[in-house]
Amino acid sequence: MAGVDRGQSAARIERDIETLAGPAYTLSDEAIRRYAYTPVYRATLDYFASALDALGFTVAEDPVGTLVARNRLPGEKVFGVGSHCDSNRNGGKYDGTMGVVTALEVCRLNAELGLDLPLQLVSFLEEEGSGFGQMLLGSRIMLQRVGEEDLRDTFRAIDDGRPFWEHATEAGYEPERWRESIHVLDDLSGWVEMHIEQARVLQDTGNRIGIVTAIAGYVHADITVEGRADHAGATPMDFRLDAGVVAAECILELERLARAAGGGTVGTVGEIEFEPSLINVVPGRARFSIDTRGVDEDGYRGVARSIAAFAEQAASRRGMKASFAQRQTLAPTPMDERIVGALEAAAKDTGEPFMLMPSGAAHDTMCVAERVPSAMVFVPCRDGISHSPLEDASPADAALAAEIILNAIRSLV
Amino acid sequence: MAGVDRGQSAARIERDIETLAGPAYTLSDEAIRRYAYTPVYRATLDYFASALDALGFTVAEDPVGTLVARNRLPGEKVFGVGSHCDSNRNGGKYDGTMGVVTALEVCRLNAELGLDLPLQLVSFLEEEGSGFGQMLLGSRIMLQRVGEEDLRDTFRAIDDGRPFWEHATEAGYEPERWRESIHVLDDLSGWVEMHIEQARVLQDTGNRIGIVTAIAGYVHADITVEGRADHAGATPMDFRLDAGVVAAECILELERLARAAGGGTVGTVGEIEFEPSLINVVPGRARFSIDTRGVDEDGYRGVARSIAAFAEQAASRRGMKASFAQRQTLAPTPMDERIVGALEAAAKDTGEPFMLMPSGAAHDTMCVAERVPSAMVFVPCRDGISHSPLEDASPADAALAAEIILNAIRSLV
Repeated sequence: MAGVDRGQSAARIERDIETLAGPAYTLSDEAIRRYAYTPVYRATLDYFASALDALGFTVAEDPVGTLVARNRLPGEKVFGVGSHCDSNRNGGKYDGTMGVVTALEVCRLNAELGLDLPLQLVSFLEEEGSGFGQMLLGSRIMLQRVGEEDLRDTFRAIDDGRPFWEHATEAGYEPERWRESIHVLDDLSGWVEMHIEQARVLQDTGNRIGIVTAIAGYVHADITVEGRADHAGATPMDFRLDAGVVAAECILELERLARAAGGGTVGTVGEIEFEPSLINVVPGRARFSIDTRGVDEDGYRGVARSIAAFAEQAASRRGMKASFAQRQTLAPTPMDERIVGALEAAAKDTGEPFMLMPSGAAHDTMCVAERVPSAMVFVPCRDGISHSPLEDASPADAALAAEIILNAIRSLV
Repeated sequence: MAGVDRGQSAARIERDIETLAGPAYTLSDEAIRRYAYTPVYRATLDYFASALDALGFTVAEDPVGTLVARNRLPGEKVFGVGSHCDSNRNGGKYDGTMGVVTALEVCRLNAELGLDLPLQLVSFLEEEGSGFGQMLLGSRIMLQRVGEEDLRDTFRAIDDGRPFWEHATEAGYEPERWRESIHVLDDLSGWVEMHIEQARVLQDTGNRIGIVTAIAGYVHADITVEGRADHAGATPMDFRLDAGVVAAECILELERLARAAGGGTVGTVGEIEFEPSLINVVPGRARFSIDTRGVDEDGYRGVARSIAAFAEQAASRRGMKASFAQRQTLAPTPMDERIVGALEAAAKDTGEPFMLMPSGAAHDTMCVAERVPSAMVFVPCRDGISHSPLEDASPADAALAAEIILNAIRSLV
């Protein structure tokens, strides 16, 4: 767009990112470690609040500490931008924070170019769960996807075991008013979150921007195969009930099923354990995790059903038993077509390479989208690395994202 | 054989076994726990010494505590019988002990029937390694398969970390004379060890006796596959370097290779670990153990070579690397044909079902066979369970074994 100085945007984004990677903003020398109600988290909110205040935004926090800043009076429609600025315990500079920084850059460009678009920036509390072990906590509180008992008692600090409620109160918040958090969304006409991709699709396809069409749903489960532990030397091949070989068959079948499902459906065995786990004992029991995901709900749910059935059959063929136990599941979240279209048009205008893609990872936008037309923009992260101090992403890509989001909002409001 | 009262033998064997399962002979209330230089181990040696003394045997111990009893003067040829009477830390009543008890019954029958066969009973120290973490320790010391530094310093008690040397000295032995232990074998014209099978071949084939033709050799190794840890949701199937699927391919290929090798060769993956071992992360690294065994050295070594090559190819096909690292290996130990033939003939004479079979597990006889024509006799153990308080075996089968061993020795000396 005429008027946007991408180099200047990139420089500002880089300065914000590097500042927020300094010792005042992380608990660790070796990684970004920033979570709710720590002084470094407070300092990070203050950094954004001060920058937004300077742009004439009214800055507030919801009853538990999600930052909300807007340039219109309550009751007036605004378009939402933002992400989260907490990190993993051993995190990098970009996951979450770069999304809030880019949202801030959208607000800066809006002022600088005299556009006066109605904007609301949100930085969600505790997306990563590093403080209380609960992912998407701020956005789940906002969408009333938790219960009061969870907040008062169940959700406890990883550091000291005390309840969320006590920590929030001590930090000066009013957790008893948590249900009012939903009003943050009252005036939103739309929402766009920018985030690093956390995979390598953009890098490996040479795209600078990903426009998310849907956030994947998933099934998380465990399969347990019950065989018989026997002496690995003394037990002939034909006398075995080896739970490990059934596990191996399932791992390969899951890969085949996910590929066959197509449409971006994925399937992963990330955890496995044999019992008794001795080199000289045939595995008597095997337990492994199942993660199937995708934006096509029939696809990934079908894979989960098929692998459960396959495991039973594969075990039974060998005289064993297998069982499938679901841990949790979530439906996919489609993004709003109109906002996706506006982002696509704005991306096309830049002449830079971009693609439409699903998000395999979960984001606060999954919650927001329940109430507000929503979309997301991804930028590449080097080698797909995230949740690590090695995380790397380009301020120039983030500047491009800021320009695209700004222009999409212009076309929407 | 006319003259052997099998019922009486079984009753005596059962009495010995049950006595030695009493509180004076185990450190644990819930299992047999008996290892070198403990009071319960001392009591067990004393039990056998007293019974053998009553039969007119001269009872002694080698410089580290292996029990040796004979009914001939030194220099005269004797035929060896015995096993070990230490146990696993969470062991049963039969593993080892039933072999010594059966050897004692051979000595009793010899006296009772007035046969006056020249016999030497040996009960080896520390077969299970429960005291010092070293399997076959007594027989390895006897065969000089350890170094003095091992005994003085490297081999240390699991309980207190002090060297074997100190414990042996405190127990009244002379570890500095350990090399003289080899003389225990000087006068042996042959050796037969009876042991529970530790697998379910005898039970499942309906045989009461197994005559061992060879003790399996083995290769123990680890295969490590190096892939890339990626987000399980955000990484499409085609972008993955999933070390876990290569591990799964190797597990199935090892089973195929072992079956194809035939001749009783077996292959087992007993241990496996994925890294980082999270449900939502594609395994970046997989490590799993390889145990290949058999009495056909070309067979199991071929399986080990083939799985190493397969792992490299399977990893390479998917753009990954795999490496094979051997932990340890041992050649098979063929049993002496003449003694096996004598045992076979004696077994046939009883009219009871028996079979020739390999031993997949390791035994002290592997060491003895280096110097002395040797063989082994197996009896069934219920469901193949051993190294467990659930271990169960039949005194009647042991009595049958005693009769067969006695008659084989009669035909040999």
